[in-house]
Amino acid sequence: MIYFDSDYMAGAHPEVMQRLVETNSLHTPGYGTDEFTHRARNLILEKCGIPDGEVYFLVGGTQTNAVVIDRLLDKNDGVVATDTSHINVHEAGAIEAWGHKILILPDNEGKLKADALKKYLEEFYADDTYPHMVRPGMVYISFPTELGTIYSKKELQEIYSICREYDIPLYIDGARLAFGLYAKNNDIGLQDLPRLCDVFYIGGTKCGALFGEAVVTARPELLRRFDSMRKLHGALLAKGRLLGVQFEALFSDYLYERIGKEGVRLAMQLKETMEARGFKTFIDSPTNQQFFILPNKVIEKLKPYCSFEYWGPPGKEESRVRFVTGWSTTDADISTLTSLLEE
Amino acid sequence: MIYFDSDYMAGAHPEVMQRLVETNSLHTPGYGTDEFTHRARNLILEKCGIPDGEVYFLVGGTQTNAVVIDRLLDKNDGVVATDTSHINVHEAGAIEAWGHKILILPDNEGKLKADALKKYLEEFYADDTYPHMVRPGMVYISFPTELGTIYSKKELQEIYSICREYDIPLYIDGARLAFGLYAKNNDIGLQDLPRLCDVFYIGGTKCGALFGEAVVTARPELLRRFDSMRKLHGALLAKGRLLGVQFEALFSDYLYERIGKEGVRLAMQLKETMEARGFKTFIDSPTNQQFFILPNKVIEKLKPYCSFEYWGPPGKEESRVRFVTGWSTTDADISTLTSLLEE
Amino acid sequence: MIYFDSDYMAGAHPEVMQRLVETNSLHTPGYGTDEFTHRARNLILEKCGIPDGEVYFLVGGTQTNAVVIDRLLDKNDGVVATDTSHINVHEAGAIEAWGHKILILPDNEGKLKADALKKYLEEFYADDTYPHMVRPGMVYISFPTELGTIYSKKELQEIYSICREYDIPLYIDGARLAFGLYAKNNDIGLQDLPRLCDVFYIGGTKCGALFGEAVVTARPELLRRFDSMRKLHGALLAKGRLLGVQFEALFSDYLYERIGKEGVRLAMQLKETMEARGFKTFIDSPTNQQFFILPNKVIEKLKPYCSFEYWGPPGKEESRVRFVTGWSTTDADISTLTSLLEE
Amino acid sequence: MIYFDSDYMAGAHPEVMQRLVETNSLHTPGYGTDEFTHRARNLILEKCGIPDGEVYFLVGGTQTNAVVIDRLLDKNDGVVATDTSHINVHEAGAIEAWGHKILILPDNEGKLKADALKKYLEEFYADDTYPHMVRPGMVYISFPTELGTIYSKKELQEIYSICREYDIPLYIDGARLAFGLYAKNNDIGLQDLPRLCDVFYIGGTKCGALFGEAVVTARPELLRRFDSMRKLHGALLAKGRLLGVQFEALFSDYLYERIGKEGVRLAMQLKETMEARGFKTFIDSPTNQQFFILPNKVIEKLKPYCSFEYWGPPGKEESRVRFVTGWSTTDADISTLTSLLEE
Repeated sequence: MIYFDSDYMAGAHPEVMQRLVETNSLHTPGYGTDEFTHRARNLILEKCGIPDGEVYFLVGGTQTNAVVIDRLLDKNDGVVATDTSHINVHEAGAIEAWGHKILILPDNEGKLKADALKKYLEEFYADDTYPHMVRPGMVYISFPTELGTIYSKKELQEIYSICREYDIPLYIDGARLAFGLYAKNNDIGLQDLPRLCDVFYIGGTKCGALFGEAVVTARPELLRRFDSMRKLHGALLAKGRLLGVQFEALFSDYLYERIGKEGVRLAMQLKETMEARGFKTFIDSPTNQQFFILPNKVIEKLKPYCSFEYWGPPGKEESRVRFVTGWSTTDADISTLTSLLEE
Repeated sequence: MIYFDSDYMAGAHPEVMQRLVETNSLHTPGYGTDEFTHRARNLILEKCGIPDGEVYFLVGGTQTNAVVIDRLLDKNDGVVATDTSHINVHEAGAIEAWGHKILILPDNEGKLKADALKKYLEEFYADDTYPHMVRPGMVYISFPTELGTIYSKKELQEIYSICREYDIPLYIDGARLAFGLYAKNNDIGLQDLPRLCDVFYIGGTKCGALFGEAVVTARPELLRRFDSMRKLHGALLAKGRLLGVQFEALFSDYLYERIGKEGVRLAMQLKETMEARGFKTFIDSPTNQQFFILPNKVIEKLKPYCSFEYWGPPGKEESRVRFVTGWSTTDADISTLTSLLEE
Repeated sequence: MIYFDSDYMAGAHPEVMQRLVETNSLHTPGYGTDEFTHRARNLILEKCGIPDGEVYFLVGGTQTNAVVIDRLLDKNDGVVATDTSHINVHEAGAIEAWGHKILILPDNEGKLKADALKKYLEEFYADDTYPHMVRPGMVYISFPTELGTIYSKKELQEIYSICREYDIPLYIDGARLAFGLYAKNNDIGLQDLPRLCDVFYIGGTKCGALFGEAVVTARPELLRRFDSMRKLHGALLAKGRLLGVQFEALFSDYLYERIGKEGVRLAMQLKETMEARGFKTFIDSPTNQQFFILPNKVIEKLKPYCSFEYWGPPGKEESRVRFVTGWSTTDADISTLTSLLEE
Repeated sequence: MIYFDSDYMAGAHPEVMQRLVETNSLHTPGYGTDEFTHRARNLILEKCGIPDGEVYFLVGGTQTNAVVIDRLLDKNDGVVATDTSHINVHEAGAIEAWGHKILILPDNEGKLKADALKKYLEEFYADDTYPHMVRPGMVYISFPTELGTIYSKKELQEIYSICREYDIPLYIDGARLAFGLYAKNNDIGLQDLPRLCDVFYIGGTKCGALFGEAVVTARPELLRRFDSMRKLHGALLAKGRLLGVQFEALFSDYLYERIGKEGVRLAMQLKETMEARGFKTFIDSPTNQQFFILPNKVIEKLKPYCSFEYWGPPGKEESRVRFVTGWSTTDADISTLTSLLEE
């Protein structure tokens, strides 16, 4: 069986796991006050080029989005996001549960368009009943998006400059950041991100960790009393050093970069294999998620040997599917897939 | 000056006010445990034909929507509503503040379409990731809608039968119910409503009261511990008898009906006056809200003598405007408007 | 029947009611943007001696406490209050419903003691696990307290100076403010309050209005975006001018003062009457709430002619009861009570 | 250095860690739908003797308490707990953040007293203003308590029978359950717990896991739609199998029992060592937390070589301290401590 369902189906990258084993018997203080967490923080700040910034670790993506958004928004604010965004669709209302409306704009291949954002904000403040409406208090995007696409530096700059004009934070969900940073033609590096948004997170769960996400900001004042906020949300891990150990491993020896590059390389091979057989993508994704339209016959043939997901309801003759690569995908997996398609 | 801005710009209908004055010096127990509230409740149950039903009084519309929706939904549920619905647009996030997502469907002249609702519910349960999504726990519509339109009995029956199929309550916001019940061609009476939905409210604030809304249900078990829920929401009026006194007045001597009929009659005159001058409506509303496209010149001419609202941003040559009649609108107001238009 | 149950059992003081009647047919814009609200605001600011302050009107006390406290607290903050405080006991969890813990200190005849507050705050910050605890983000007291007692100016100054030392707002619930301001030996005036706390409210519901509370602050920046906050809480009255009209009446011709003085005068007469018969108070209250220990025989004799409340569960031989005077209490009521006791 | 600060300072028990390593490269579906989770669930149900019960896994204790309590309570309910309980003191308001008041009763050495609970519930319903108060909707206790003490079976039965009388669930926080189950004189087994309460959790984080808590109930209907509830709370782990793998390890080869027994054995040795030197306990705990009053001189002597926590503010001559044993404590640690004390 080969697995392309998602990037969270195996455990941790062996180098991450090895560090968890090596450090297992050590005693450290709890809740992220340990030396591993401190070193991981410093490593990340160095890679991001923001020595005065701050890093906080959390366990999972929905949790991270809920805590960060709840912290960035005033009580009577909402968060602007696209209709296909993860927080709007697949987090079971975790944002609204903390009292915040998601203000939905249409997406363009998963991306928020700068002009749509500008128009929305202009019209909001032009309407004199706006105190009766939910104020757009921040903007949420993801990089890569739910559809695997990435913003260019220019696109991000446009969005961020609108946010600064309206003095609202821009937050980037980087659940799959590794695969965006090392995508072909991507022109955004880790050092650029703190200058292109206010807060972002470096995804661990989908990028080689057992679990864990690292929230990064060059403006620590935005995440005030964040220990207490994490505790309040049930998001402060007792053995916090587990997060520090993993992120220290991910940012040592270029592991995060290697995971990102390898996932993208295999995704591109997968795409070539599909396209060589005449199967089309319905989204042109440069990252580790690949979206194809496959004949149902092909799907049926693959299913016993290969797992992947339908994207939306199946069609009559052909259906939309998603294939995802990750740290545990191998060249052999792609070869096997190629053989299956060729049979 | 003549006023067509909205239906909450004057105080209470004189017959309501008179009862408040007459009863002012009486002593009653608080929080709605008084005889006036009891009598108003019984009057409403009788008019609705549901002797075993229940009625609860609240102060305002946003409050009522927030309390009822919070009561009807389980904690991890959302409420289905149209994108133009009041709760989605003009209540400053009061629904989300209590943790509930609004699940938005496109509207058709302000109305929810039964087939769109059915399709949405079918697809929701067909998606096996639905535990990661917000469950549609109830449906919210208004009668009349934000755009003054009304549902036919057949349309309501279709919506309600879908709700029953999925076992989720249907709630009707009746902020302007009087003007819907007595609209031309309306085929729904107060006695029908308890059979066409699970909970609805009879609007007072916009229909002749100083303030107040009456929540009605034929299924009292749906609104369990509603005293405590109202208190929790800051929605339990200390001098609760003020609501009882007002609703007793509104449902005595056919006052609510008279207010509804008169508002509609004047709205229809207003429409005729406009159409006679060649001005078109952009929504064909049979109720007390009327929506016209007026040349900006006409708007400028009217403004010093007549108040009304823009509906959306003004256009270059002509703009969309809303005129509203209410208990305090008179024939003289319409005559004055007619004269102003003829000048 | 004579009524001493509470101060919210009759309607509005006739002078307030008269103004509501006189202004009933006028048209004004909604949501407190009218001239009455503006004038009431200015009158209150003038009486309080804070021309640069701000005033906001709400409908009821629980609502006011919930909105103000939710606005003053950061998301991970709690409010310090005494165990007998109204928000802790009789508001059905309306503070916690918005996510805020009530941090309870023992009371002294209903009052918060400065030294207990100081000790609590010192110990909180001395405990290095405090990010895992709820931060005391503000202090809530009431004037008069739930037990009718009042703070001296010196006591308030001590509390407020501790709050300033810890940079947390002090908020005073003035549901029965009129009866505190005009209590015998009270040394605090309306002009003092803005200098003795950060935010307070002037109670209307229990002091002569049909309903309504006026939130006052000399530091408007503390109540930022308060229109939106009120809307979010379902606490922004559509016909907002009703609050303006009432508070304009209350602060014209010394009405609020007259109501306060008269309520206190009658309460003192009531107390004398009781004491003359040998019945003891269990709290020595100088305001309109009076607390007596009455033999059950006396209670039984009074009940058919006079209403009042038990304070706690009835005892075997004697029970604790509360008598309250208000704008509608008369000298005749006291005489009748006296006669009843003498029989 | 020897460590007695707490039981979450080292990683996972080696047998747990070994299983995580062995299963690391396997692919499984996410969110707890994997075979490991299924097997762990079945193992636990078997050990508890409730084949028709249900088990859900979460990441940490605060999170577990917040999700379970939010699920068990109706919206206008609070949870009864002692003043020293973890949810009341050290969870940063995570319960109130979801809208629920903690209804505080005084504790007796960390334990809730059945008669105090009964009196509280009786008085609540005897007070006819109870709809204005927060309804006690469930009872929370912990086993062992924050002070290391345990309930006898008789004590638990008394509490549970009161809960059943009032038809409110009893929930037991078992963060340190292993050390309670295997405490000397404990007469409660895993098979008893489902009959002595409605929901409880088996602590992993403090009892040998890297992280993780297992919520168990014999009444699955109480935890309806719990996947969605966990997701909503940000508490549904993507690689859910990590929890299954760990709990399968803990409940194989009697590991949980061995960890519990060993922690208790070492704690008793530690206590003997202390008592042999004349140092008194201020709580007589039979579990892995031990509470002593030590002369400050002794504390100073130990500090460079041994870590432990102050319990409250230090005293002038002597102070209260807590020593905790866990899976990583060894006989050698106790010997070293003994030597340090003897010097």
